[in-house]
Amino acid sequence: MNDIVLHNYFRSSTSHRVRIALEMKGLTYKYVPHHLRHGEHLEPAYLAVNPQGLVPAMIWSDGTLLTQSLAIMEFLDETQPDPPLLPNDPLGRARVRMLAQMIACDIHPVNNLRVLTSLRALFGAGDEDVANWFRHWVNEGFLPLEKLLASSPETGTFCHGGTPGLADICLAAQVTSNTRFDVDLTPYPTIARINAACMSLPAFQKAAPKNQIDAE
Amino acid sequence: MNDIVLHNYFRSSTSHRVRIALEMKGLTYKYVPHHLRHGEHLEPAYLAVNPQGLVPAMIWSDGTLLTQSLAIMEFLDETQPDPPLLPNDPLGRARVRMLAQMIACDIHPVNNLRVLTSLRALFGAGDEDVANWFRHWVNEGFLPLEKLLASSPETGTFCHGGTPGLADICLAAQVTSNTRFDVDLTPYPTIARINAACMSLPAFQKAAPKNQIDAE
Repeated sequence: MNDIVLHNYFRSSTSHRVRIALEMKGLTYKYVPHHLRHGEHLEPAYLAVNPQGLVPAMIWSDGTLLTQSLAIMEFLDETQPDPPLLPNDPLGRARVRMLAQMIACDIHPVNNLRVLTSLRALFGAGDEDVANWFRHWVNEGFLPLEKLLASSPETGTFCHGGTPGLADICLAAQVTSNTRFDVDLTPYPTIARINAACMSLPAFQKAAPKNQIDAE
Repeated sequence: MNDIVLHNYFRSSTSHRVRIALEMKGLTYKYVPHHLRHGEHLEPAYLAVNPQGLVPAMIWSDGTLLTQSLAIMEFLDETQPDPPLLPNDPLGRARVRMLAQMIACDIHPVNNLRVLTSLRALFGAGDEDVANWFRHWVNEGFLPLEKLLASSPETGTFCHGGTPGLADICLAAQVTSNTRFDVDLTPYPTIARINAACMSLPAFQKAAPKNQIDAE
């Protein structure tokens, strides 16, 4: 038993990614929930831990604060290499990081709860506007992601070959998030197939939002 | 002389990052401009190269397409390790990636040209709304970034010690981008100091938007 602490929210897609990586690595951790919709991440006690007031934030066993899901997952991969989240060759690693970042940099940040909340507050966006916004950016990202995955001989059962990694984690977390806004996966058969392969694995099942202590 | 091709736009912050990394590594490349405001990145010839239709996209010497600035920079660092963009120790690497991603995942994606254009098209946002939106997300990210940088003994002349790396590249590109929307850097003295240190270096100067062939 180590003493990793993960500041977390069951529905946060970035928290979800880190939970999957921790489960894949077989690492146990203390789950500290912060209810984003109730603003618990902006309370002074949490801002003293993480000035950015976002989740996930991991407190490593030596007390170090680490934030940013991609940085945390790369750290876990460097310190607990088995099973690996990235291939060994630089071009393969670049491909997996590229696929992961097509979601983590181009889809998710624009569809964050705080961005959707700002659209409502600043521009009077209603539920339908917010749902359309969310689906628009998912489709903008999933269309080229599907093309890259479907056209590459490097795509296997998972995004890169026969074992899941960084890109699959981001893909599965995004597909889970999509269900709240009824995103149609029909145009993305490769993404849907890879997501199903991920969700057949215990690590992905255990990390799912609905299985967390703060799930509603 | 190698034959790296970089699909590019002078003002794109993510293109800017990759140019800095290439200059730091002493790599030459063919600069292919795509005028984003004229929609040149959405022309069929470019979509055949990069289905996502975004810049930057790098065509590596073996013909491989690589996109996503962070993935490209990590690839450059793995294949051309000198000078390094990341420290050697896992916690240091995680810290630098975290600082980089606080910009690359939490500030820049929300302030992209395509997002700002969508605010205008979908919600009738005007110039002042767009500028306020841009400044809001920069401030949301720079406030905790400044706190983390100012409070850490690991911060030196640059974000992590005495040599520039991945986080400094993202920082300098973001500060350059900020000037178009008059972001006040006064609340961020550490960020301003690090940016000044970056901009004193030839690699950062050569990669600046104003020094590119497509600069206006």
